[in-house]
Amino acid sequence: MAEASHPAPVIILNEPQLAENIGAVARVMANFGLSDLRLVNPRDGWPQERAWALASGAEWPLNAAKVTESVAEAISDLNLVFATTARPRELQLPILTPRAAAAELHAASGQGQKVGILFGGERAGLETADIALCQAVVTIPIDPRFRSLNLGQAVAINAYEWRTTLLDAPPAIFREHSPPADGAAMLGLFEHFERELDAAGFFHPPDKRPSMVQNLRSALGKARFSEQEVRTFRGVVTALSRGRGRVLAKLAAQKAARGETE
Amino acid sequence: MAEASHPAPVIILNEPQLAENIGAVARVMANFGLSDLRLVNPRDGWPQERAWALASGAEWPLNAAKVTESVAEAISDLNLVFATTARPRELQLPILTPRAAAAELHAASGQGQKVGILFGGERAGLETADIALCQAVVTIPIDPRFRSLNLGQAVAINAYEWRTTLLDAPPAIFREHSPPADGAAMLGLFEHFERELDAAGFFHPPDKRPSMVQNLRSALGKARFSEQEVRTFRGVVTALSRGRGRVLAKLAAQKAARGETE
Repeated sequence: MAEASHPAPVIILNEPQLAENIGAVARVMANFGLSDLRLVNPRDGWPQERAWALASGAEWPLNAAKVTESVAEAISDLNLVFATTARPRELQLPILTPRAAAAELHAASGQGQKVGILFGGERAGLETADIALCQAVVTIPIDPRFRSLNLGQAVAINAYEWRTTLLDAPPAIFREHSPPADGAAMLGLFEHFERELDAAGFFHPPDKRPSMVQNLRSALGKARFSEQEVRTFRGVVTALSRGRGRVLAKLAAQKAARGETE
Repeated sequence: MAEASHPAPVIILNEPQLAENIGAVARVMANFGLSDLRLVNPRDGWPQERAWALASGAEWPLNAAKVTESVAEAISDLNLVFATTARPRELQLPILTPRAAAAELHAASGQGQKVGILFGGERAGLETADIALCQAVVTIPIDPRFRSLNLGQAVAINAYEWRTTLLDAPPAIFREHSPPADGAAMLGLFEHFERELDAAGFFHPPDKRPSMVQNLRSALGKARFSEQEVRTFRGVVTALSRGRGRVLAKLAAQKAARGETE
């Protein structure tokens, strides 16, 4: 599953129109660990400063981008290339979701194949003749009511799916926090809580106590407190019950001052 | 699994800075069937024309966008809200990938809960105090070497994952093509092909014929020809062998004209 043993797919943009989109593509490639970008006949020539401006620092895919005059030339060293399109064609190629495509590309890359994903330009998408050079079609399960997907977003979805073949888990900096406290710690909290509620006359009528206790325990249990959180909540229970004691003492003192008895 | 029984998550943008990004978010929401957008204190006020310009026609999330002054107000009617962030916090919330988050939101939505996903602004992300109002943290498994993910892309990944809980298959317009031809049709093609290759003296030496035949059959079989493609390739074989016949006849005629014999 290591990245080194599964080189990431090459991203090929056929006749991209807006340098801003090329920059956005470079940025999202960097987000998901891709770096090899190829441009087939970019409309406004290459390089274009605006691409670098939109890449937010993800300059290496742009600096190394290879420009070719045809899709055939761009994919000449690749063993497996999938074409992305939102429009069905008359071709008999397999149709894959981005997830299924990423799984196939991952397997092929792990076997030493050079793999790539081909994207069409913003307006016209891909020519069928170019798709025919590829081994499968990838299409995103988009809402048919609004099919206009931005080029950068299309690359993002596919690059993200590639990434999840390597790491479908929170990044390492999201270290698992403290685990949930164990049963003994939770029971200690529950019993402490229930003792104070007993003292406060909360469980009423008494024959409802067992079911009320069960409901309170399961409600708190869902929060999966850590040990620290158990300690915090025991402090909360203590503070509230002492607080109640202070309030009662204060009321009694007020009554006494007014010459009343309890 | 129907959309009607699983209302899509609300998207909440906390203090978004660029109207262009709000427009890009609306566009990608429409791509993946989401429509309820809420904006907490958009930096430049609201509405902003540039948002509509960037939405490429996905105007309905913008037209209906609700503006609030706090995250608390924006989520006041929601039962389950997940906060997206690329930075770990001291909170003890569960950490989910977009895929796991979408699965949980899908299940909750199917039970009638109103669900949402909270995103921070472009520069600062979310305050920990706002994350603490949510029930889990969502983080994208990004490459730690380049963590600067565009706001529109972050929404795209999560909206796409939501969409795949409803439809993780090519859209209906990508109707399955003709299925692969059956075994009899393929065997007919193989035998036709091999007859012509026999006639052309291709299988040499003869004791290699069985393994050569197996290799040719498996090589062609991988293409999973449809019945139409089988017919096409039988035509190809016929054309090539007749062509060879014509070439041989022509050579014989030339030799005869020069007074040679075969």
